[in-house]
Amino acid sequence: MNQKAFQDYYPDHMAHCYGCGRLNEFGHQIKSYWDENNPQESVAYFIPEPHHTAIPGYVYGGLLASLIDCHGTGTAAAAAYREVERPMDSEPALRFLTGSLHVDYYKPTPLGVTLEIRGKVKEANGRKIVIEEWIIAKGVITVRGEVVAVQVPDGLVKELLENAEK
Amino acid sequence: MNQKAFQDYYPDHMAHCYGCGRLNEFGHQIKSYWDENNPQESVAYFIPEPHHTAIPGYVYGGLLASLIDCHGTGTAAAAAYREVERPMDSEPALRFLTGSLHVDYYKPTPLGVTLEIRGKVKEANGRKIVIEEWIIAKGVITVRGEVVAVQVPDGLVKELLENAEK
Repeated sequence: MNQKAFQDYYPDHMAHCYGCGRLNEFGHQIKSYWDENNPQESVAYFIPEPHHTAIPGYVYGGLLASLIDCHGTGTAAAAAYREVERPMDSEPALRFLTGSLHVDYYKPTPLGVTLEIRGKVKEANGRKIVIEEWIIAKGVITVRGEVVAVQVPDGLVKELLENAEK
Repeated sequence: MNQKAFQDYYPDHMAHCYGCGRLNEFGHQIKSYWDENNPQESVAYFIPEPHHTAIPGYVYGGLLASLIDCHGTGTAAAAAYREVERPMDSEPALRFLTGSLHVDYYKPTPLGVTLEIRGKVKEANGRKIVIEEWIIAKGVITVRGEVVAVQVPDGLVKELLENAEK
């Protein structure tokens, strides 16, 4: 894809997330985009590592939850910027953290294939954006999930960073 | 602790989980126990790695979801064996997989400290056991969660293993 991913717009202090931070060299570095063919939906692709097992041959549920989490907050941020018709690196910053996460495991998700993680806005209500998501493996939806993303002032993020244990 | 952890009773074919499998050398290998002082509650301790970041200084939500997931299914299995007064390695096997997972993030969870993951049975209904959980960091509950663990026949687990892509 030629588009820049949602996560590529995150400023450095928001780019260390284990799930999606481009600056976390140990992390998953997932990349989410609006689907060019269906711009109401966002999409990310991810190939789990062989050791991301639940039982051998199937993807660990905690990883699937992580993909739902990061693709969800990324989609929430992108939707918020799109709503006000601004690029994702423009000021004032719109930052989202996960308020809650729900995942339903419908079928075992096979390892060794590219997973497609899709999302769309289900509800936007003030500082709260609910993203509905699903994961597809070999053409089959194996997981459905939902993230409640909560907008936090960038000042609060910076305050948390200052208060963190060094 | 001198007790054997719930996960130490899992047979080899259930011990490759990235979250709690003793045979997954890349995974978290969490260990869950009944609390000796409060046997209705289970407990696990875990120290996240420095790269398990959300924003710098705070634990990644996907990892917290993973801890809730594995401690929950472990507690469900242990509770099921306790209910029938059998050790966890006795036959017939009682195997649980995650049906759904819910996590509420109340406060940012600090990195660099030992996390205490606690759980208890909220509901047991046939093949379904609901485990209520919470995570404590520096004496404060930062996360609450719930796992719906579903009992699956060991034969089905073995069938999945046989059908997995090699």
